[in-house]
Amino acid sequence: MNIGLDMMGGDFAPLEAVKGVQQYLSANAQPATLFCIGNEQQVQSLLTEYQIPADAIRFIHAPEVIGYHEHPTKALKEKQQSSIAIGFHLLASGKIDAFLSAGNTGAMLVGTMYTIKAIEGILRPTISTIVPKIDGSTGLLLDVGLNVDCKPEQLNQFAVLGSLYAQHVLGIDNPKVGLLNVGEEEGKGNLLAQSTYPLLKENSSINFIGNVEGRDVFKDKADVMVCDGFTGNVILKMAESFYEIAVNRQLHNDEYLHRFHYENYGGTPVLGVAKPVIIGHGISNATAFKNMILVAEKMLQTNFCGMIKQAVMQSV
Amino acid sequence: MNIGLDMMGGDFAPLEAVKGVQQYLSANAQPATLFCIGNEQQVQSLLTEYQIPADAIRFIHAPEVIGYHEHPTKALKEKQQSSIAIGFHLLASGKIDAFLSAGNTGAMLVGTMYTIKAIEGILRPTISTIVPKIDGSTGLLLDVGLNVDCKPEQLNQFAVLGSLYAQHVLGIDNPKVGLLNVGEEEGKGNLLAQSTYPLLKENSSINFIGNVEGRDVFKDKADVMVCDGFTGNVILKMAESFYEIAVNRQLHNDEYLHRFHYENYGGTPVLGVAKPVIIGHGISNATAFKNMILVAEKMLQTNFCGMIKQAVMQSV
Repeated sequence: MNIGLDMMGGDFAPLEAVKGVQQYLSANAQPATLFCIGNEQQVQSLLTEYQIPADAIRFIHAPEVIGYHEHPTKALKEKQQSSIAIGFHLLASGKIDAFLSAGNTGAMLVGTMYTIKAIEGILRPTISTIVPKIDGSTGLLLDVGLNVDCKPEQLNQFAVLGSLYAQHVLGIDNPKVGLLNVGEEEGKGNLLAQSTYPLLKENSSINFIGNVEGRDVFKDKADVMVCDGFTGNVILKMAESFYEIAVNRQLHNDEYLHRFHYENYGGTPVLGVAKPVIIGHGISNATAFKNMILVAEKMLQTNFCGMIKQAVMQSV
Repeated sequence: MNIGLDMMGGDFAPLEAVKGVQQYLSANAQPATLFCIGNEQQVQSLLTEYQIPADAIRFIHAPEVIGYHEHPTKALKEKQQSSIAIGFHLLASGKIDAFLSAGNTGAMLVGTMYTIKAIEGILRPTISTIVPKIDGSTGLLLDVGLNVDCKPEQLNQFAVLGSLYAQHVLGIDNPKVGLLNVGEEEGKGNLLAQSTYPLLKENSSINFIGNVEGRDVFKDKADVMVCDGFTGNVILKMAESFYEIAVNRQLHNDEYLHRFHYENYGGTPVLGVAKPVIIGHGISNATAFKNMILVAEKMLQTNFCGMIKQAVMQSV
């Protein structure tokens, strides 16, 4: 199992990436082989400082970096020696099995779409977010921004992708799937929600429980909540702002509000593509990097992409 | 100034409605004339109990009530003697100048649309919500559910309606108007947001400051935030659930989180119709009823509906 990690992506890279690698290695007796991709000068001294033995990882030198504000397509094309471009090259050629980065999100998405491509039958890949539930459990919301205008068939597929991810990677048994909507009853909603409901109701591969409303997002009514990427993105960014609000109000030590500290999360996989690609938050800290590696490991262990392929084939 | 109040609407009616009337009367030296519409048997004894003199209000007997789960159109048609039907009748005939209820929202909306009607030139009336900002100020979000599928021209009008409401009723000077979106830059967004941005930018009657994201909803970036009613409804219901979460975590005494106690708010006016109609939350308490009366009073004092008429005429 070879996992490629962009050491240069994220506001606190490469330091937090190195610390994340250290955390991962020290917590796993039989770790995956990590391909650490980054600028040798900047990363090697940190690897030494954090006592990561040279033979514990594979280091891949990448002399260039794609910055946060660079145009994704242009940067990927022009910076072939950047950590992100090299990562996708390694992933496409099969030298690594998964690729993770907390760098330029656009470049990660463009790289994923053009290098790895969607699984046949997948209408549109999607990205999701973890939602901390008030009862202590964890939910999944998708799409959160990759698809701002959606068709009912896409939402129906997101439900399947989210359901499989919740079950096999998050470990939620028979996840309840809800359609985010403006009312509880069937027939409620905008044109998209109205047309999506019957598709979800007919879909035998998911455990559809009906509509969920804004007030249910943090409750345990549904484990997987499906919506268009416009609504999902607004919700995600609102949720991310809660921790900031909690800090402002000095309430961040509350056990529940602390779970909105998105810096700790392990990023989001691009669901529906042929190989695991995980996009981390720009503010990722060491724990986030470690968690990203763990998510990739879990996706490889469960052959998650193969499972999606199977699910899509069965639904055709 | 004659304001009609449905005494029978809301989970805690008529008790909280009566208490709200008492609060309003005792705080105002020159109160508006309140037309209290409700079941005489149920309301009169409470009026006596709360020492509201018979000549302080006008009581209108309504033998019927429209329940929460009744079909709006059917109920309005069949229950002509209900407090809501009588309220709209009084409003249409000019006996009252404004009508308020915390009862069946659907019946209130149907009554508004069919009895009072939209101001000429208004594409679609809209409803809004107050948003507590972390800096202590108050924002306005609209639409929050009346228009779940929107056109750019409608969002552009919501911006004007929201802006006038923020300025003249909420007292926000030169309110900053933001388009709720998935990114900061012009060109971002779904088809609706992309097409709305240039209209707002060209609109000289508002102070447009560009896009706002989910993370900005509770910040002071924009005072008036415009979006389709699907997204707005999800946000409103999420915001309403915060107080519940705060109670659950025993954080509801926090000064900021306490402002999410939507029971206290005075309901939302239907913006864009010819006369002030205010729809209260089902859980309205005495303070909410008092605040609803104050909002109606303010709308009448500022000739708010006339102002809207003027604004629409100028934009044609």
